[in-house]
Amino acid sequence: MLKKQEPELLRAVGTTIAKRRQFLALTQQQLADAVGIHRTYLSDIEQGKRNISIGTLHEIATRLETTSASILRQADKEMRAKKSQQSDTRTALDK
Amino acid sequence: MLKKQEPELLRAVGTTIAKRRQFLALTQQQLADAVGIHRTYLSDIEQGKRNISIGTLHEIATRLETTSASILRQADKEMRAKKSQQSDTRTALDK
Repeated sequence: MLKKQEPELLRAVGTTIAKRRQFLALTQQQLADAVGIHRTYLSDIEQGKRNISIGTLHEIATRLETTSASILRQADKEMRAKKSQQSDTRTALDK
Repeated sequence: MLKKQEPELLRAVGTTIAKRRQFLALTQQQLADAVGIHRTYLSDIEQGKRNISIGTLHEIATRLETTSASILRQADKEMRAKKSQQSDTRTALDK
């Protein structure tokens, strides 16, 4: 498997979940309780330290009043934005 | 967690993956080899028997020339279509 891409994807998914949670003014504890997972597990997910299942992603998305597809789409954008920032920096350094 | 929704979601994701694979005229063996997983594992995924990680979904999606977000969106549609079929049947039976 192309494992190299995974940490980046998981971080982007975690960031997307954290942003959406903050947008809804929920604490990690509140979201974790609603989903039925431990707060530290949610914290790990938000930091991209866990390769969560699509089932868990679906539950989290539902509690965040969105869909798993939308979270992954947002995460994709997040990843692409980071990549273009990195290549901008590289171009600047090359000059 | 709302575990009840999971089997339905996993089946819809599996069906979506199988359809996309068939559209690209790939065998299970070919896709499994490309992703680096066992053919029986892919077969389980396509039947909705496995709660795969978003990392694995991402790898499969990449090999199917699509994105994990697109697969989940398609799976959502699949689920909704099934639900409306079921309620149609129920309505028909009620008559």
